[in-house]
Amino acid sequence: MSLHAEILEQTAVWQQSYAENLEVVQAIAQAVPLESIHHAFIAARGTSDNAARYASYLWGAMNQLPVTLATPSLFSLYQQPPRLRNTLVIGISQSGQSPDIVNVVAEGKRQGQPTLAITNEPNSPLAQTADFVINIHAGMETAVAATKTYTTQLLAIAMLSAAWSQSAERFALIERLGEWGTAVLAHDEMIGQMAQRYRYMQQCVVLGRGYNYATAYEWSLKLKELNYVVAEPYSSADFRHGPIAIVAPGFPIMAVAPTGPVLPDMHALLQKLAEEKQAELLIISNDAPTLALAHSPIALPPDLPEWLSPLVSILPAQLFAYHLTCAKGYNTEAPRGLNKVTKTT
Amino acid sequence: MSLHAEILEQTAVWQQSYAENLEVVQAIAQAVPLESIHHAFIAARGTSDNAARYASYLWGAMNQLPVTLATPSLFSLYQQPPRLRNTLVIGISQSGQSPDIVNVVAEGKRQGQPTLAITNEPNSPLAQTADFVINIHAGMETAVAATKTYTTQLLAIAMLSAAWSQSAERFALIERLGEWGTAVLAHDEMIGQMAQRYRYMQQCVVLGRGYNYATAYEWSLKLKELNYVVAEPYSSADFRHGPIAIVAPGFPIMAVAPTGPVLPDMHALLQKLAEEKQAELLIISNDAPTLALAHSPIALPPDLPEWLSPLVSILPAQLFAYHLTCAKGYNTEAPRGLNKVTKTT
Repeated sequence: MSLHAEILEQTAVWQQSYAENLEVVQAIAQAVPLESIHHAFIAARGTSDNAARYASYLWGAMNQLPVTLATPSLFSLYQQPPRLRNTLVIGISQSGQSPDIVNVVAEGKRQGQPTLAITNEPNSPLAQTADFVINIHAGMETAVAATKTYTTQLLAIAMLSAAWSQSAERFALIERLGEWGTAVLAHDEMIGQMAQRYRYMQQCVVLGRGYNYATAYEWSLKLKELNYVVAEPYSSADFRHGPIAIVAPGFPIMAVAPTGPVLPDMHALLQKLAEEKQAELLIISNDAPTLALAHSPIALPPDLPEWLSPLVSILPAQLFAYHLTCAKGYNTEAPRGLNKVTKTT
Repeated sequence: MSLHAEILEQTAVWQQSYAENLEVVQAIAQAVPLESIHHAFIAARGTSDNAARYASYLWGAMNQLPVTLATPSLFSLYQQPPRLRNTLVIGISQSGQSPDIVNVVAEGKRQGQPTLAITNEPNSPLAQTADFVINIHAGMETAVAATKTYTTQLLAIAMLSAAWSQSAERFALIERLGEWGTAVLAHDEMIGQMAQRYRYMQQCVVLGRGYNYATAYEWSLKLKELNYVVAEPYSSADFRHGPIAIVAPGFPIMAVAPTGPVLPDMHALLQKLAEEKQAELLIISNDAPTLALAHSPIALPPDLPEWLSPLVSILPAQLFAYHLTCAKGYNTEAPRGLNKVTKTT
């Protein structure tokens, strides 16, 4: 299956993954109740690390659970792991193969902590090491750039959060993801035309905050992997603390800014970038005044809840990266120098 | 005082800061013993966030303390802070002014957790909010780009770690920092010549891992703030997971790779980048075979311990960013669009 087909099939994949995991997440939420854990500790690399970023906001806001993104080299290269107490130790990996990620989960187990693997490979070393496994059921992903495995990782994270909260209301919203995703994937052709303008773009910045900090990271990773564009992700707050200096007139800035508590801050920064810095903006949003700041606007569904928006807002970003790869004449299926499975220690 | 003078005075500033804080860190280590905390939670932005990254490796490796970099928007914009238990809550900020950082520390206090401010302004809102304060005593920093306030933050983090461990041996090594710093600052003129070659560089990648992951972030921040270069920081492990695709022949890569447990991994990646990708390498190291891979090598002292190397290895990086600013004809004291104090919510 091609990258383009894998992007477009995501809503169908979500439906399958949701059905397969409904009981699984309930069982995990029962076996590892929030009362028993003070802390989640997640090891991941690349795209999976961006999914972990979503967990750090979602589980923090919805489940009051502090989330740490692990520093795997402490466990592997330095062999001086931190002492973990009342901690759910999680490894996220499409392939479940990377030794440094397996290592963190194995150490969590040695320290007597509950462990969880979120992976597409239920027979992988990662899944075999962990007490609990969420198989994301994304199906075989052929393209080297991860797309459907990322959004099904996000889905697993959202489902586990709703299970911890025992929230039928939030499960009902998760069931509407397919509808919102389909609406956004319908922009495919328009995004193909939009991408032409960026044929010679060599560098850019990608902004997002809160739940969509993850989207900024994942979008910029696709732009690097597929388009060889030096694309740097930032939260609006961090961007103001120094990096904003790089913006000259015409500098391309991508942004994800759906309605929600972070929108006023994102809007204020985007307005400053448009009006004071004459940056060129490509914006994914469902807020009309924010979209009006963009040279290239991409609309999200009006009733999309912000906490679920990362699953939907990454879809046009994936399509943009795909079409830009075509426009630049690069290989959409196998970017230079990359393999599907990367093993790091 | 100018940026260049502030870079060069750092060894003297360290000596002063060390003397002022020796009793302070001992008192904090006694008042908040490691037995009483399971977890450190650090809120910071920009340069101070890079200091927090050092803490996450150093306190993890030396004190077995898991460290979380806070997501301040959960506390401010979302108003849904995570539940903190047995947690030392820390704010790091040069000015102590940013409302979102003060907010995290105030919430920690509300939840009954011990709190610590690491700041250059002992009368700032941040210092007034926290139970304990380490005044970094960096003196007035005039240049907008932070240099001596960064390294004195690292010094405070290293001193608190040694105090927690009650390690006279490690305090003795900290006392040698001035000697190692002086040796590296002596490369000033050579680095000025080296920087000429990069006059027209517009983008680059900065690599570091483990303790010097912080250095990669801080170096790349200086390149953005002062040189308007799109400079992206990566650990060697994360870089292999996708971003390596951007490297074409001649692509400039900066790296910090002192001897220590992460060197073999860094060396293997740098060798691949030099030999297979024909990247151009600028390397800061005290390992001769690694320096030999570089077009532009910068030598560190041979006996520098890796855990203290971030204080020393950032010095030539600061000098490089300074001299490149001069070569590009930009303003070294006040980069475009930046203020010394950035208040984010």
